[in-house]
Amino acid sequence: MTSIEVALETILARISPLQAEISPASSTILGTCLAEDIYADYDSPPFDKSIVDGYAVKFDDLESRNWKLPLSLEIPANPQGPAELPLGTTAEIMTGAPIPVGADTVFAREECIHTGNSIQFKPATGKRGMNILPLGKEYHRGDLLLKSGTKVTPQRAGIIAACGKTSVMAQPAPRVAIISTGAELVEANMKPKGGQIRNSNGPMLVALCGVTGALPKYLGIAGDCKKHIRSLLDEAVNSDAIIFCGGVSAGKYDLVPDMLIEAGAKILIHKINLKPGKPFLFAVAQNGKPIFGLPGNPCSVFVCFHLFVAPAIAALKGEKHRHPNILKLPIAESFHHQSDRDTCFPAKIIVDQHQLKVLPGKWFGSADLNGLSECNALLLCREGTTSHNPGDLIQVIPTEQAY
Amino acid sequence: MTSIEVALETILARISPLQAEISPASSTILGTCLAEDIYADYDSPPFDKSIVDGYAVKFDDLESRNWKLPLSLEIPANPQGPAELPLGTTAEIMTGAPIPVGADTVFAREECIHTGNSIQFKPATGKRGMNILPLGKEYHRGDLLLKSGTKVTPQRAGIIAACGKTSVMAQPAPRVAIISTGAELVEANMKPKGGQIRNSNGPMLVALCGVTGALPKYLGIAGDCKKHIRSLLDEAVNSDAIIFCGGVSAGKYDLVPDMLIEAGAKILIHKINLKPGKPFLFAVAQNGKPIFGLPGNPCSVFVCFHLFVAPAIAALKGEKHRHPNILKLPIAESFHHQSDRDTCFPAKIIVDQHQLKVLPGKWFGSADLNGLSECNALLLCREGTTSHNPGDLIQVIPTEQAY
Repeated sequence: MTSIEVALETILARISPLQAEISPASSTILGTCLAEDIYADYDSPPFDKSIVDGYAVKFDDLESRNWKLPLSLEIPANPQGPAELPLGTTAEIMTGAPIPVGADTVFAREECIHTGNSIQFKPATGKRGMNILPLGKEYHRGDLLLKSGTKVTPQRAGIIAACGKTSVMAQPAPRVAIISTGAELVEANMKPKGGQIRNSNGPMLVALCGVTGALPKYLGIAGDCKKHIRSLLDEAVNSDAIIFCGGVSAGKYDLVPDMLIEAGAKILIHKINLKPGKPFLFAVAQNGKPIFGLPGNPCSVFVCFHLFVAPAIAALKGEKHRHPNILKLPIAESFHHQSDRDTCFPAKIIVDQHQLKVLPGKWFGSADLNGLSECNALLLCREGTTSHNPGDLIQVIPTEQAY
Repeated sequence: MTSIEVALETILARISPLQAEISPASSTILGTCLAEDIYADYDSPPFDKSIVDGYAVKFDDLESRNWKLPLSLEIPANPQGPAELPLGTTAEIMTGAPIPVGADTVFAREECIHTGNSIQFKPATGKRGMNILPLGKEYHRGDLLLKSGTKVTPQRAGIIAACGKTSVMAQPAPRVAIISTGAELVEANMKPKGGQIRNSNGPMLVALCGVTGALPKYLGIAGDCKKHIRSLLDEAVNSDAIIFCGGVSAGKYDLVPDMLIEAGAKILIHKINLKPGKPFLFAVAQNGKPIFGLPGNPCSVFVCFHLFVAPAIAALKGEKHRHPNILKLPIAESFHHQSDRDTCFPAKIIVDQHQLKVLPGKWFGSADLNGLSECNALLLCREGTTSHNPGDLIQVIPTEQAY
């Protein structure tokens, strides 16, 4: 059976970033990767700038005039024109305003005494050059501020705006088609009868794709009918990735592998050394699109999504960092586990006295979706026996932000 | 000056969760809090269920029949009706299918030998009751699965669907109005002239609100004109929260505090012991809506958003956990900082050999938006002198997911 690591490398080797698109520089590019370098188109600040509300002076004027200067000017943040400080005077200046020609120092207002039309400065508080942010201190025109491939965060959205960009080349969100299979499934709006159960995997996969930055398209339940599964594949095949859920094992009605071969897809992985998730399948459609076959148990879906589909979505999005992060965190209670396969055991990362710790979940096996409810991480236990005392470090794959 | 802690408590004391709304159980409720308890409306599994593809038997039949039974039935995952196992026979059964009446054990197919119309079982691999998930093992009808107040994650979206809910009562996303002030500001599509600079705070705040799960509404730049600021406040006042950016300090053109008083708002906090962010203001409008006045420097915006606005948005969303998490992480290099105020210093949490560490950012002060580009956290340094050697634990407030 293929190992988790080999499976992931096989998948990532088959996936290239999507073609970049021009996008408005709005919230829609948050979390996407830039596909162009962003350069500064002006110096920042574009002029020597006051960082306080106060009084601008030529420092050398002060001593000879007994630290008292007449007020000659007021300089707002956006003055009509460039100001010039008359010799032997001071100018009232606002935060962010350009330093007037002839001044080299700004005293904060609270350090000064305003008497009539003059300002009295305190010698002890003065230092030549203070309270001025010099032109270009943050960056200069032509500086590379954000490299192509950088992920857009809120502060980078600010930088993009500061550079005068209202649209950017960015990697689009991958469109992911989701197809459920299984004759026993009915949708949430139906009351299950006889051998039926409700389809919880479809809504979970839609949500998982959403939080990973993909655009999910749920195509419905195919039932256990090869013709129906094939017609949904044909509908899905222009998406950037396709997820089948259920029907990938070795049962008589696990029709997905055969149907994929008939449709000209190439199965590259089938069955991995993983619990839950052993029947996992990865194939490439005739047109090159990646196809994921996830086993139908909800915990298998959750685990296989985080181990294999999320990294593939990251790769389609052009992210440099694709592999799941593995942290080593102290486990909060004793934990013993035995399996003949590598196991991803549901767990919860908690913040305890400002430290991250991990708690194993309550979980009876791969059908236990309810056991995943409190989980925000997976313990990675290698095949064989895992035995840990409280405080021991254990390998943890976070599945959502824990803090 | 108000401390960070007192400011946050003052804010949270004034904020109640928004009125819950009925919402379709789709991706739009991801990250929101449920405002109703979700109960199981049927047992799961709803019948004793096979967890493998294999053969169902009555265990006691085996020994007397030399571990070989004729094949009598095939039970798919969703059979036409309830199956009954004829005495002394075995039934082929699929994963997820109901165990036929009379059977108590399932052998996995790979453990059996199919000879003609009979199945030969291996005594060594058999254990009475194996491979059956009993009715109600996951939960019973009437069990409380998700409590009101629980945040919707992908796996909980699956549970909601499993419970047959296609719509739920949930806390809506708060609508947050954003108003920039400052005569020196022009939007990203303009080329700054003279004393002008581009408005980077507006786009950053829109993005910060978005990633926090609010619905931002950007109302534009008010300039330094009280009448204009007031008219934008009037436009904003039916939002769930209002953010002013700039114009809150003590300068001659810092018109927001005066304008708020004239509009009947009550200023509860003005100036805090924080760097950057000292001029921060919090007020309550006449209609009770929270108003945040953030200083205009981009780093002050970033810091004050994470310390005060994000917790307020969490409170409006009905989240139980509102306070910023403070982690203690080892610092990766020496760090010395001196300030007369509590300081939030930009930093980056990194994963190094499976461990989280924190690196101080390169940052020259509150105007340095570019210095925030790589930052995903803030170091919390108390007033006075902070001095740390590599490996020392330091207080860190994460601002985005670091792994």
